[in-house]
Amino acid sequence: MKQYIKTDEWNIIEEGFHPEDQRLSESIFSIGNGHMGQRANFEEAYSGDSLQGSYMAGVYYTDKTKVGWWKNGYPEYFAKVLNATNWIGINIVIDGESLDLAKCQVKEFRRVLNMKEGFLHRTLIARLPGQKEIRIDAKRFVSMTVKEAGLIRYSITPLNFDGECIITPYLDGDVKNTDSNYDEKFWTEVHKENSAEGAVLTLKTKKLNFRLCSLMKYDLLQGGEKSQHTAELIEKEKYVGCNLRLTLKQSEETVLYKYVINVTSRDKTEDELIPYGKSRLEEVYQKGFDAMLREHSAAWSKKWNESDIAIEGDMSAQQAIRFNIFQLNQTYTGEDERLNIGPKGFTGEKYGGSTYWDTEAYCLPFYLSTADQKIPRNLLIYRYKHLEKAKENAAKLGFPKGALYPMVTMNGEECHNEWEITFEEIHRNGAIAYAVYNYVNYTGDRDYLKEYGLEVLIELSRFWEERVNFSKARNSYVILGVTGPNEYENNVNNNWYTNRIASWTLEYTLEVINRMKADSYPAYKSLEDKLSLKETELVKWMDIIKHMYYPVDEERDIFLQQDGYLDKEQCLVRDLDKQNLPLNQHWSWDRILRSCFIKQADVLQGLYFLQDKYDLDTIRRNFNFYEPRTVHESSLSPCIHAILAAKLKDKEKAYGMYLKTARLDLDNYNNDTEDGCHITSMAGTWMSVVEGFGGMRVVEEKLCFHPVIPDNWKSFSFRIKFRGNLIKATITKDAVIIKNENGQKITLSVNGTDYTIDSEKAIQI
Amino acid sequence: MKQYIKTDEWNIIEEGFHPEDQRLSESIFSIGNGHMGQRANFEEAYSGDSLQGSYMAGVYYTDKTKVGWWKNGYPEYFAKVLNATNWIGINIVIDGESLDLAKCQVKEFRRVLNMKEGFLHRTLIARLPGQKEIRIDAKRFVSMTVKEAGLIRYSITPLNFDGECIITPYLDGDVKNTDSNYDEKFWTEVHKENSAEGAVLTLKTKKLNFRLCSLMKYDLLQGGEKSQHTAELIEKEKYVGCNLRLTLKQSEETVLYKYVINVTSRDKTEDELIPYGKSRLEEVYQKGFDAMLREHSAAWSKKWNESDIAIEGDMSAQQAIRFNIFQLNQTYTGEDERLNIGPKGFTGEKYGGSTYWDTEAYCLPFYLSTADQKIPRNLLIYRYKHLEKAKENAAKLGFPKGALYPMVTMNGEECHNEWEITFEEIHRNGAIAYAVYNYVNYTGDRDYLKEYGLEVLIELSRFWEERVNFSKARNSYVILGVTGPNEYENNVNNNWYTNRIASWTLEYTLEVINRMKADSYPAYKSLEDKLSLKETELVKWMDIIKHMYYPVDEERDIFLQQDGYLDKEQCLVRDLDKQNLPLNQHWSWDRILRSCFIKQADVLQGLYFLQDKYDLDTIRRNFNFYEPRTVHESSLSPCIHAILAAKLKDKEKAYGMYLKTARLDLDNYNNDTEDGCHITSMAGTWMSVVEGFGGMRVVEEKLCFHPVIPDNWKSFSFRIKFRGNLIKATITKDAVIIKNENGQKITLSVNGTDYTIDSEKAIQI
Repeated sequence: MKQYIKTDEWNIIEEGFHPEDQRLSESIFSIGNGHMGQRANFEEAYSGDSLQGSYMAGVYYTDKTKVGWWKNGYPEYFAKVLNATNWIGINIVIDGESLDLAKCQVKEFRRVLNMKEGFLHRTLIARLPGQKEIRIDAKRFVSMTVKEAGLIRYSITPLNFDGECIITPYLDGDVKNTDSNYDEKFWTEVHKENSAEGAVLTLKTKKLNFRLCSLMKYDLLQGGEKSQHTAELIEKEKYVGCNLRLTLKQSEETVLYKYVINVTSRDKTEDELIPYGKSRLEEVYQKGFDAMLREHSAAWSKKWNESDIAIEGDMSAQQAIRFNIFQLNQTYTGEDERLNIGPKGFTGEKYGGSTYWDTEAYCLPFYLSTADQKIPRNLLIYRYKHLEKAKENAAKLGFPKGALYPMVTMNGEECHNEWEITFEEIHRNGAIAYAVYNYVNYTGDRDYLKEYGLEVLIELSRFWEERVNFSKARNSYVILGVTGPNEYENNVNNNWYTNRIASWTLEYTLEVINRMKADSYPAYKSLEDKLSLKETELVKWMDIIKHMYYPVDEERDIFLQQDGYLDKEQCLVRDLDKQNLPLNQHWSWDRILRSCFIKQADVLQGLYFLQDKYDLDTIRRNFNFYEPRTVHESSLSPCIHAILAAKLKDKEKAYGMYLKTARLDLDNYNNDTEDGCHITSMAGTWMSVVEGFGGMRVVEEKLCFHPVIPDNWKSFSFRIKFRGNLIKATITKDAVIIKNENGQKITLSVNGTDYTIDSEKAIQI
Repeated sequence: MKQYIKTDEWNIIEEGFHPEDQRLSESIFSIGNGHMGQRANFEEAYSGDSLQGSYMAGVYYTDKTKVGWWKNGYPEYFAKVLNATNWIGINIVIDGESLDLAKCQVKEFRRVLNMKEGFLHRTLIARLPGQKEIRIDAKRFVSMTVKEAGLIRYSITPLNFDGECIITPYLDGDVKNTDSNYDEKFWTEVHKENSAEGAVLTLKTKKLNFRLCSLMKYDLLQGGEKSQHTAELIEKEKYVGCNLRLTLKQSEETVLYKYVINVTSRDKTEDELIPYGKSRLEEVYQKGFDAMLREHSAAWSKKWNESDIAIEGDMSAQQAIRFNIFQLNQTYTGEDERLNIGPKGFTGEKYGGSTYWDTEAYCLPFYLSTADQKIPRNLLIYRYKHLEKAKENAAKLGFPKGALYPMVTMNGEECHNEWEITFEEIHRNGAIAYAVYNYVNYTGDRDYLKEYGLEVLIELSRFWEERVNFSKARNSYVILGVTGPNEYENNVNNNWYTNRIASWTLEYTLEVINRMKADSYPAYKSLEDKLSLKETELVKWMDIIKHMYYPVDEERDIFLQQDGYLDKEQCLVRDLDKQNLPLNQHWSWDRILRSCFIKQADVLQGLYFLQDKYDLDTIRRNFNFYEPRTVHESSLSPCIHAILAAKLKDKEKAYGMYLKTARLDLDNYNNDTEDGCHITSMAGTWMSVVEGFGGMRVVEEKLCFHPVIPDNWKSFSFRIKFRGNLIKATITKDAVIIKNENGQKITLSVNGTDYTIDSEKAIQI
C-alpha cells in the first residue's frame, strides 16, 4: 500500500517528483476517451523507469502463445492490445542539453488529473545539468467530442537564461509491447508525409492488417505571438518529426500546441484514412486548443451529471469514487458495439485489454444506471455477435451443441491457455446469462430477448445440459472438473456457484421461453425453428433443474463451496501470519490450492446475484463462514462483500470493503497498479455505493432502496437512470431524499414502503 | 501401429529403404553403451527427414523454461540432454556427385541391429543421379569395453564405373537441439587440431561448462591395402574434417575405418581431456576395428548370459523381449553412480533425458536381478546424493522439514513446470521409499539402510507428516490436491494410491527404525542425532498410519481411485468409439479429466507394489473394475497389468498386455517412437515376463515363483541373480525347471512348495 496521492474532491494530485513511482503514476493519471487511451508518460524524453503506452481501442495483435505443455483445445494465439504510435512526444533541447527529468533537478513538480474537466496537467521547474532553469507547464487531453483527437499545450519558460532551443514534436511508431514474445515489434510502416506544418504516419500491424493513421499539426507561440523559428524535418523508419529551432528569452513563455488525430482502419477504409484524418485534423486545428477543451469539459460535465456520486464528510472516499467513475467513463463510452471493457482499460498492457466475465458480472450495472439504454444493450450485443464463435469453442471441447463463451477474448475466440481456466472456468457462461436477466429486469426491454437474448440463453442452456452428468452414486446431476470464481481452487467437483448458476440459467431460459410462447408466439416459433429446439431438450432441462446436486454443510446450514471443502484445514485469514500475504506472492500454487483460503466471492457471488431467492439469515450464515476465509486477492472481491455486508447492516465491514475496492489503485493496495489500473473492478466500487449503501435493486419491475450510511459519512447521493426517469437519491444520517429529476411520475420503494413521486418532485423519508 | 520390422530371434531388421519412417528407424536402431548413445543416423549426408542425435550421458543444459503463467516454486530452468558433436559423419562425393540417399535410387537396403553382438549394420546399393551405382556396407558400434570409443567401418564399392571420390570423415559440433528455445545453440568451441591422420575438437556448453573432447583417426584401405590418397584439411567453426581424395575402381572395395574417442569433463579435468583422449584413441586404433568388435561382442555375450530371456514358440515375443533388454543394457550400465535412466535413454531428446520415478518404480527390478548388486545400489545412492536438494525443494513449497524429490531432474533440482505435476504428483516420494524396501528385500543388504537408506526414509516420512492434514469432517488424515500415477486426473483429493504409499512409507520407516534400534543401536543413534529425530515425530507417524483415510466403494468392495471417482459417468474403454483413441490426441484436457478413463495403473500400481498385503480376491475385484477403464496411454501401464493378470491366472489378458509393452517401439504402438524409444518401460517388459509369467517374488528373504505360460509359448526361460546365486528358470507347458547355476545351495519356493537345490543342480517340478 502506497499513499502519496493528495486527497481532493475532484482532482488526483501528485506533489513533488516521485521517479520511483513513475510507472504507478503513469497508470493512475492515464487519460482516455473510449477510442484511445494514453498513460501519463512525459511528453519530453525521459530516461528514467517508465512504461510507455498509447492504446487504440479494438486494435490488437494475435501473438504467439507461450506455453510449456500444450493441450488439445488451446488457442493458437493470445490477443493483446497493442502499444501504438507514441503521439504525445515533444523533445526539448536547450543549448545542446536535452530536457530529461531523470537527469535534472526537479522542483515544484505537480501532476494533476482534473477529473471534473477531464485533462492532465503537469507543472514543474527543471534545473538542467548545466544549471539552466526552465518552467514547464504541460496540459493534455483526448477529446470526448472528437474521438480521434489528442491535444497538447506544452509551455516552456526559461527562468535564468536566454538560449537556443530545439523543440521537436514527433510521431513515433517504433514501439513495442513489454510482454511481446521474442521482443517482436508488431507494426510496419505504410506511409509517411512530413512538412514544416505537420506530418502523417500510417502504420499497419503485421497480422490482421489493422491500420493506424496518425496526423499532427502544431503551432509555436512566443510571448503570445507566432514565433520566429526554423524547421528541420526528421524522418526515420516509422517516425516523423520536426526540429523547430528558436531562441528562448528569459521569463518569456514559449508554447507549442500539438494537435493530433489518430484514426484507424476499424472506422475508415484504407483509402479514407488520410483524407478523413486530414479533414478532422484541420477542423480541430481551426477550432484551437482552448475551444476544444471547453467542448470536452462540457461533455464531461454531462457525464458527471449522470453518473456522479457525492459523499459528504469523507474526502478520501469522495475522491476515490470519482476516480473510479472517471476511469470507467474514460474506458468505455458504449458508442461502439464492437468494443468492450478490458480489465486494465487503456492504462496498461496486462491482461491483453481483452473481455472477461468482469463485464457482465461487474460492469453492466454501472452502465445500466448511468448511461443511455443502448450502451448496456451494446455490451450484450457484443456477446450475441460472438455466439457462433462460442459454439465453435464448445465444439472444440467436444460438445456437439451449445455455446461456451471464452474466458478471455478480443474477437470471440478464446485466447487464454491455462487448462484450469480456459477449459474449466465455465461459470463465465452463467454470468453472461445473468447479464441478460439483469438487463431485461432493469430496463424492461423484452424486445431484446426476442431479437438476441433468448437465442443466447438457449445456447448457454444447451451447453449446461451437455456439461452436467448424472451421477448414479448421488442420484443427481453433478458438474465435475471446474474452476469457480474462486480461482484458488482448480478442477473441483460441484462448485456450488457453478452448479447453481447453471441450474438458474436453465430456469431463466425456460421462464423466458414460456412467457414468449404466451406473449409473442410467432417470435418464439421462428427462434425455435432457427435453432431446431426440441421439446425433449426443455424436458431434459427441467429434469436437471429438479435433480441438480448442491453441496451443503448440514451442521452449519451453509452451502459448501465444492465437494470436499471441509476436508481442508479450516483457518481464518485473521490468524494468518501477515508476512504470507498476498498468498499468491508467497505460497506455492499447491499450497494455495489445498488451503481453505478464498481469492474472491464464490458462494457469496451466487448469493449476491440471486439475493432475492435467499433470506437474510441464509446470506448471513454463508457470509459469516466465507468472508473470514477470503483474502480478497482479486480486485473483484471486496465490492461483492461490501454489498452483502451493507445488506446485512454490517456497516463497519461494508465500509472497510468499500475502501478496499475504491482506493485499490490510488493506494496501490495490491502492489500492481504500475501495470495499469483495475478498471473492471471500478464498476464494483460504484455498485458498492449504489447497490451496497444505497441498497438499490429492481424487484418485479420496481426500483427499491434499502439505504445504510457509514458512520463517518454525513451524506451521500447518486443519480440513476431508470426506464426514462432520472432519479437522484440522497442519503443522510437522518433521512432519505429521493428526487424524480426527470421523466414521468414513478412509484418506487424505500425500505419496503412504496412511494409515488411526480416529475421533478422529491420525497423525504 | 506400424509393422515393418522383420521378425528375428536376435536381430532387428529393416529390409527396403523407408525414408518415410527414417526417424522411427533412427530411434529403434540406436546404439549406446551407458556413456554415450547415437541414433541410427546415416554416416553420409542425408537431406531427407531425420533427427540427428548424438548424446553424452550426464551432459546437459539448463535451458530457459517456457511457460505462459508462472507460479511460485517453479524452477527457473529445464535440464535437457544435449545433442552433442556429430562424430559419425563421413561425407562421400563421387565425381562431383554427393552421396545422399534422399536423392539416389536405393536398392537392397538392409539395416540390422545385431543385438547379440551389439552393432549396427547397414548395406545398400545406391544409384546416384548420374546413374553411377555403388554398394555401401557400414558397420558401427560404441564400445562396451572402452566406453569413450565409437568405431565405424564404412565401405564403398563402385559397381558400374571407375571414378574420383572424396571421402570426408569429420567431427561437427555445430549441432542444436530440436526443442531448444529460440533455436539457441548450446556449444561453443574451445580448441581444435587437425592433421591428415586425425583431428581433435573440444567444445564446451554455454552454461555449466561441460566439456566434450572428440578425437578421431582413420585408415583408408583399398583392395585390402593402405590406399593412395591426398588429404585436404577442412576447418570451420566447431568443425574439423579432412577430404581424402582417391580413385575408386569398379568392383573394388574401399574401406574407411573411423576411430573416435568422446571424453567429457565429467570424467577428466580440462587439462587431462586431450592427453587422455589421445592415449585412448591410440590404444583403440592400434587394436583395430575387428579386435575391438570382438572384445565388444564378448562383453555383450556376458551381458546376455546374465539377462537374456528365451521364449520358444513365439518369435515375435522373443525378438521383442531381447530388444527391450538390449536397449536397457545400452542405456545404463550402472558403473557411474552419477547417472540414471532417462525415459528415452540415448535414443532421442524428449523428456530431457532426465530422471523420473520410472527408475525406482519400473527399472530397479531389472537391475536387481540381472546386474551386480552395486548397480541397483548405485541407482539408490543417486537419490541419496540428491537428498539435500530434495529438502530444499520441500522448503520451496513451504514445508519446513522433510524431502520432496523432484518429478524430473538431472542434478537433484526440479526441472519441470506444470503445477499439477511438479507440485502435486508427490507419489514419486513413495516410489523412492519403495525402492529402498525393494532393494533391501531383494538383496538383504541391511548395511545400505544404515549408511543411506534410513536417512532417506526419515526425510520422506517427515514430508508425508507435513503434507497430510487432519480433516475434522472425516475424523481422519487426508491428502488433498494431488495427482496420482493416473495423470488423467489432476488436483484430486485422497488418491488411494498416494494415501496408501504415504502411509506405507511411514510403516516401513518405523519398521526399519525399530529393527535398527534393536540390531544396531549405535548406527541408529548416530542417525537420530544427525537428523534431530524426535520421539514425537514417530508418535505422530503412528497416529497418521492409524487414522489415514482411504476412499472405498463399499458396494463393489474396491478401493476408490480418489474422492468422487464414482460421480463420473462410468464407461468402459471397449465401448469407446475407437476414433477417440488415444484420448490425449483427440480430447480436450477437461474432458479427459472428468472422464473415468485411466491413463495407467493407479490403484493397481499400489496393489502391485503391496501385493503381499492383499489377497487375490481383493486384487481381482480391483483389477476387474479398473482395467476395463484403463486406456494404457502411458508406456508404463501395460506391464503392471500384465503382472497382475498373470497373478490372477488370466493368461489371455496377461499375454495381450505383454505384447503391448514388449513391442511398443518395434510396432510404434503410440505413434511416437520417432522421438526416441521408451526405455524405462522396457524394464516393465522384463518384469512382465519374470514377475508376471514367472511369478517371481522375494518374500521373507526367499525367492518364490508362481509360473504361468501363455498358451502359444512352448517354453520360456530367464536367469536371475539372487544373493550370490545365479538361478535359471525354465517354464514349459508341463514343467518348471529351476537350475542353481552358480553359488551355494539355495532353498526357494515354487507354487508355494519349498525346494532346496544344490549348487549347479537343477530340479524339475
